[in-house]
Amino acid sequence: MKREDLSEKILDIKRDRGWTWKYIAGEIGGMSEILVVGALLGQMKLVKPLAQKAARLFGLSETEEKMLNEIPHRGAPMPPTDPLIYRFYEMVMVNGPAFKALIEEEFGDGIMFAIDFDIEIAREPNPKGDRVKLTMLGKFLPYKYYGNEPDVPAYGFKE
Amino acid sequence: MKREDLSEKILDIKRDRGWTWKYIAGEIGGMSEILVVGALLGQMKLVKPLAQKAARLFGLSETEEKMLNEIPHRGAPMPPTDPLIYRFYEMVMVNGPAFKALIEEEFGDGIMFAIDFDIEIAREPNPKGDRVKLTMLGKFLPYKYYGNEPDVPAYGFKE
Amino acid sequence: MKREDLSEKILDIKRDRGWTWKYIAGEIGGMSEILVVGALLGQMKLVKPLAQKAARLFGLSETEEKMLNEIPHRGAPMPPTDPLIYRFYEMVMVNGPAFKALIEEEFGDGIMFAIDFDIEIAREPNPKGDRVKLTMLGKFLPYKYYGNEPDVPAYGFKE
Amino acid sequence: MKREDLSEKILDIKRDRGWTWKYIAGEIGGMSEILVVGALLGQMKLVKPLAQKAARLFGLSETEEKMLNEIPHRGAPMPPTDPLIYRFYEMVMVNGPAFKALIEEEFGDGIMFAIDFDIEIAREPNPKGDRVKLTMLGKFLPYKYYGNEPDVPAYGFKE
Amino acid sequence: MKREDLSEKILDIKRDRGWTWKYIAGEIGGMSEILVVGALLGQMKLVKPLAQKAARLFGLSETEEKMLNEIPHRGAPMPPTDPLIYRFYEMVMVNGPAFKALIEEEFGDGIMFAIDFDIEIAREPNPKGDRVKLTMLGKFLPYKYYGNEPDVPAYGFKE
Amino acid sequence: MKREDLSEKILDIKRDRGWTWKYIAGEIGGMSEILVVGALLGQMKLVKPLAQKAARLFGLSETEEKMLNEIPHRGAPMPPTDPLIYRFYEMVMVNGPAFKALIEEEFGDGIMFAIDFDIEIAREPNPKGDRVKLTMLGKFLPYKYYGNEPDVPAYGFKE
Amino acid sequence: MKREDLSEKILDIKRDRGWTWKYIAGEIGGMSEILVVGALLGQMKLVKPLAQKAARLFGLSETEEKMLNEIPHRGAPMPPTDPLIYRFYEMVMVNGPAFKALIEEEFGDGIMFAIDFDIEIAREPNPKGDRVKLTMLGKFLPYKYYGNEPDVPAYGFKE
Amino acid sequence: MKREDLSEKILDIKRDRGWTWKYIAGEIGGMSEILVVGALLGQMKLVKPLAQKAARLFGLSETEEKMLNEIPHRGAPMPPTDPLIYRFYEMVMVNGPAFKALIEEEFGDGIMFAIDFDIEIAREPNPKGDRVKLTMLGKFLPYKYYGNEPDVPAYGFKE
Amino acid sequence: MKREDLSEKILDIKRDRGWTWKYIAGEIGGMSEILVVGALLGQMKLVKPLAQKAARLFGLSETEEKMLNEIPHRGAPMPPTDPLIYRFYEMVMVNGPAFKALIEEEFGDGIMFAIDFDIEIAREPNPKGDRVKLTMLGKFLPYKYYGNEPDVPAYGFKE
Amino acid sequence: MKREDLSEKILDIKRDRGWTWKYIAGEIGGMSEILVVGALLGQMKLVKPLAQKAARLFGLSETEEKMLNEIPHRGAPMPPTDPLIYRFYEMVMVNGPAFKALIEEEFGDGIMFAIDFDIEIAREPNPKGDRVKLTMLGKFLPYKYYGNEPDVPAYGFKE
Repeated sequence: MKREDLSEKILDIKRDRGWTWKYIAGEIGGMSEILVVGALLGQMKLVKPLAQKAARLFGLSETEEKMLNEIPHRGAPMPPTDPLIYRFYEMVMVNGPAFKALIEEEFGDGIMFAIDFDIEIAREPNPKGDRVKLTMLGKFLPYKYYGNEPDVPAYGFKE
Repeated sequence: MKREDLSEKILDIKRDRGWTWKYIAGEIGGMSEILVVGALLGQMKLVKPLAQKAARLFGLSETEEKMLNEIPHRGAPMPPTDPLIYRFYEMVMVNGPAFKALIEEEFGDGIMFAIDFDIEIAREPNPKGDRVKLTMLGKFLPYKYYGNEPDVPAYGFKE
Repeated sequence: MKREDLSEKILDIKRDRGWTWKYIAGEIGGMSEILVVGALLGQMKLVKPLAQKAARLFGLSETEEKMLNEIPHRGAPMPPTDPLIYRFYEMVMVNGPAFKALIEEEFGDGIMFAIDFDIEIAREPNPKGDRVKLTMLGKFLPYKYYGNEPDVPAYGFKE
Repeated sequence: MKREDLSEKILDIKRDRGWTWKYIAGEIGGMSEILVVGALLGQMKLVKPLAQKAARLFGLSETEEKMLNEIPHRGAPMPPTDPLIYRFYEMVMVNGPAFKALIEEEFGDGIMFAIDFDIEIAREPNPKGDRVKLTMLGKFLPYKYYGNEPDVPAYGFKE
Repeated sequence: MKREDLSEKILDIKRDRGWTWKYIAGEIGGMSEILVVGALLGQMKLVKPLAQKAARLFGLSETEEKMLNEIPHRGAPMPPTDPLIYRFYEMVMVNGPAFKALIEEEFGDGIMFAIDFDIEIAREPNPKGDRVKLTMLGKFLPYKYYGNEPDVPAYGFKE
Repeated sequence: MKREDLSEKILDIKRDRGWTWKYIAGEIGGMSEILVVGALLGQMKLVKPLAQKAARLFGLSETEEKMLNEIPHRGAPMPPTDPLIYRFYEMVMVNGPAFKALIEEEFGDGIMFAIDFDIEIAREPNPKGDRVKLTMLGKFLPYKYYGNEPDVPAYGFKE
Repeated sequence: MKREDLSEKILDIKRDRGWTWKYIAGEIGGMSEILVVGALLGQMKLVKPLAQKAARLFGLSETEEKMLNEIPHRGAPMPPTDPLIYRFYEMVMVNGPAFKALIEEEFGDGIMFAIDFDIEIAREPNPKGDRVKLTMLGKFLPYKYYGNEPDVPAYGFKE
Repeated sequence: MKREDLSEKILDIKRDRGWTWKYIAGEIGGMSEILVVGALLGQMKLVKPLAQKAARLFGLSETEEKMLNEIPHRGAPMPPTDPLIYRFYEMVMVNGPAFKALIEEEFGDGIMFAIDFDIEIAREPNPKGDRVKLTMLGKFLPYKYYGNEPDVPAYGFKE
Repeated sequence: MKREDLSEKILDIKRDRGWTWKYIAGEIGGMSEILVVGALLGQMKLVKPLAQKAARLFGLSETEEKMLNEIPHRGAPMPPTDPLIYRFYEMVMVNGPAFKALIEEEFGDGIMFAIDFDIEIAREPNPKGDRVKLTMLGKFLPYKYYGNEPDVPAYGFKE
Repeated sequence: MKREDLSEKILDIKRDRGWTWKYIAGEIGGMSEILVVGALLGQMKLVKPLAQKAARLFGLSETEEKMLNEIPHRGAPMPPTDPLIYRFYEMVMVNGPAFKALIEEEFGDGIMFAIDFDIEIAREPNPKGDRVKLTMLGKFLPYKYYGNEPDVPAYGFKE
């Protein structure tokens, strides 16, 4: 069995029952909606208690429940062809250089951690048309300059 | 003269004077730091009063000032090879399907507008290591289903 | 069930019954023909009343009707290998720079909205050979320069 | 001398004099604005009288005037990274299959001619925000089925 | 049913009966051999009377006969990996620039029509080894310079 | 010095003097026009006497004359973006499978030789618009099945 | 039936019976081992008597025997990911320019024929570790310079 | 000035003086040799005191010293064509799936940190030929499952 | 049967029984864990006694056992989309130039052998978060400069 | 200075003096012609005494002589567009699977060494047209199965 077959089965059940993602994420609970939906679509793992709830909700077999608890091979095809996803891709393509310049100036050499971070989507009512508010919160991880600080022994080229 | 030559000149001046982006954006003012830096790196336009301030700050010629006010040919090479920018790319690659599922459920068919939106980066102090907080606020733009609403005449195939 | 399997089923029925797209779009009605055909080919969603008409026309199951009402993962493979579609691709490749120059000069910084727009195809009789007339009508969406207008607060880099 | 160097020179002059494309196309005249701008950007040729007018306007040398009259090596890099041009690319990617289905049904096997066609861009005032109207008018070119019609002798495999 | 499944079925029948393409094209008749074979391989359509003959020859169902009469989604994967097809690809890659220079000089700005043209393959006996003679005959299609000729009104940018 | 710089120099001279390719090929003579033009564009070599004539015609240095006699690194970028060249590419993409089927049936396993072949372009007057006639004549090169014929010793795996 | 399904079937039988390629090539005989194995893996054709032997050895049906006698669509995916095959690819990537320089100097303008050539692999015992000896023997095929030799009439551009 | 020009200048000086990387890294000191060499090749930054030492060693200008202290746009072209670097690429291509399986089983969901890690290369003498020993030491960074632990509030979809 | 189907079957059994890779590698034993897991995932071969143990452990058929002993077609798709594997890819992309500079200086012209080397993964406890330690040990393979050493006869170009 | 500039300079001198590669390789001597030519084209290093001879022959500066002694960043662009080099690429593409099958059966799991091997090109006179004989001789490098042999300790996953 492949993870994508499990995702397709879950989508079939969701369609038949007329459930929303909101309802599903509410039933499974305990975690950001984006992460729960990501797991059901095959991009994240569900920790055991949540995998169990998901299995009960969708009437999955024990094997399928175990698969939801496995870490999947992540990553969708790029560049995205779907317009909604492409807009995020474009946002990175256009603003990437400025992100790099400002984050490095503020935090130093390193990266914003794309793995251990949380994402929240919220609707912001606005008389001229509601807005989508997307907040990402990631730990900053600095490059270490080994050998350049007292507690970090430098590695050399030893024979 | 090409826009990238102008960006390189600006980076040379910034390096020589030892200026920070914060200082530069503060001097030019009036707009989100990301947009100002993006314009100096060749991805955005500066409106006339800001282009003037930038020209005065960097001692640019009149032609260079006009170029900063032009809309550039946007977009950096993809996929990004730089680790900091790649993390954002990866975030879209892994979470794109969940973004699509949740935004469409909440807002209907359409897209979050990647052009008319604002971006804010903030440092969030944290005892376990400070965090980068990135907030994007974009208008939701729905697909129109022409002919399906009283005020939108359907287009047909007319001979 | 995947959307492409549903499209293939619809094409099989269309072929067997000898229906034209014109007939099908007429039966489903209420929307631009291009959008109706796009939905049946898996690139658009049909709003509920139209999905219902389509389901009745093609004798689809309730699940299949729901799927037609879902927003698909849009986008066909590029570059197009089919000559008819390639001609449109080429038109963008050759005229893209001029579109950008003229639209930006007329409208300012922004984009023509490729999502909320309508498309009409019409036959224009001509003694030297009929012509295809393709009309696209899209809202212009300007870049906002936040912080540069009284009602748009600028975002900064806050610590 | 390369065509792209000539385009850059023309852009430099346009920037210095503060001319608009509208003004330039008006001075050169006699042809669709998109085609004139396309020629100055290196994607089209200017017929001799227009090349002469362009040379006089920009103060070009005789050699540069001749180059404007040459047919350039057409085509910009794809996929486009600039958001404005990408929207047209996306429009083809999403609607291509429906274009093919409807045009072939209406006209038979063939293609809409992407070379011998005209393009017009117009602003359509609209209280909810002006719209861009793009009209393309192209001759339909049918596939010939040689040997299948009295006046078209079939080709065979002759030894 | 997909067009490629139909092609595979036709190849299976051809193999079992030991037929040659020459024989098959002779039975179906009325058109260039290359076009008939192209249609059976899924790159061309057969007009109705020929589709009927092909169906009778191969014992196809009515639905399969209709599919042969449909215009397929054309285009094989590129670059070709098969040496025989690659040689034609290489011929375009190496001689393309000279084709462009000579055809444009002789005919003016435009293209040789790759759709409405005929192709003939013939064996040319030669004591040093027979030769393949490939003849292509295509209509030349000139670019139109709208607005530059009395009967072609120029399109402008109208507000 | 690079071959492409020499080609650019030749194009500059051709433009300044107002020469046609026909005139140039006539002056250099002795070989197919396509091959002469191909050599001047950097895709073919000119044999010594022709290189000498070309050098005299264009007033080239001795070194440049020698370079014209060198075999260049052949091949233009693919896929072609220029519409005229793309049509030939498309012709291979759509008809490649039929070429393979018919040529192999007629000649057996092998390839049409894309190197040792000649190409002729001719204008065919036609009341409905002149036509371009492109004739390619190539030797057929069969695969050898070593060890399967008396005079071809089979190679084995010898230890 | 597809050629790759036949190859998979042959590999299944080879595995079950525990045969080596050496044994199989010996049973089919009459041709270089590389070509026989290439044919069973779907990259070459087997001439009729060998196809018959192969069919008897593997217990294939008459249709499968015919398929082995067909010329396949050649070419494996590139670049190769398998380390053993990649080494040959790398050898071409690194030594290609020197091959070109030396072969052209020795033989003149043309190519080594990659189709009508033989390949032999042999083990060369060596106290420091045995060596693989790969010998390729290919006919040299010169470019013809038509019109430049008495017996080769030049092609021109005829109207 | 671009970083790659600075790297080229440094390589020129190194060549002229006949210095080894070992000597250079020893003079600059204080950090792993790989990181120092990486910085001089344009992939890492040198912290200020090291940039100063490097500037003194190579006789760089103040601006060049500042550039060495900047964080470069990291990443060399992929896939690597150089055999030495390709072997590491291949090692990831072949062993990547096993790395993923074993590291995730041992550490849970997360990644080995490719930024904050150290690398050491050592020569390991061996009678059968010395060996290269490459040691990488990276912190493991776990995925956080927000909302699933008492101190991590879950993000929801708030309106 | 394909190797990837066998890998999927093994993963299904592992999931159902709740086995860890550690347990599996312990049962099969005798080799580095990475190589055993790599073989089960289809990237390595298991030598016969280990293939037998694996077959007994997973209850495989005799044919499946033989397949595990076959050398697979190695190599996973690149670039990796999964974050954990990508980090190794990035490590090569960023540090590749420095690896090349230092290894070549220390060992001379050649490569670290990516095939005959061993890999060890170890957990290194650390109060600030455990670390992953990856050690690679590869033989250095020097380029031979044939003809330049007494015992290596130079190859020439012999006629 | 870049290696490619040095190669261009060497080609300029070779052209001016009318030298052949054979003459040049004879003057520099002591190594296979392919390797000498490869070094001058920027794909190999020349050991010191040969670099000295080359420098004297071409009248190079001391710095240029040192550069010839450096190991270059190897690898030409792929796939090759030049027909002569493409034939070798095609040979790998078509015969790669058979190479793998036969070499692995004869030698076991491993690779033929593409770095430490020699290549010889020879002309083989033949009444039907001379032939190019290319011989490659490479050491076979087996995969080691660590832990599976008494003298190779297995690596485990140690905590």
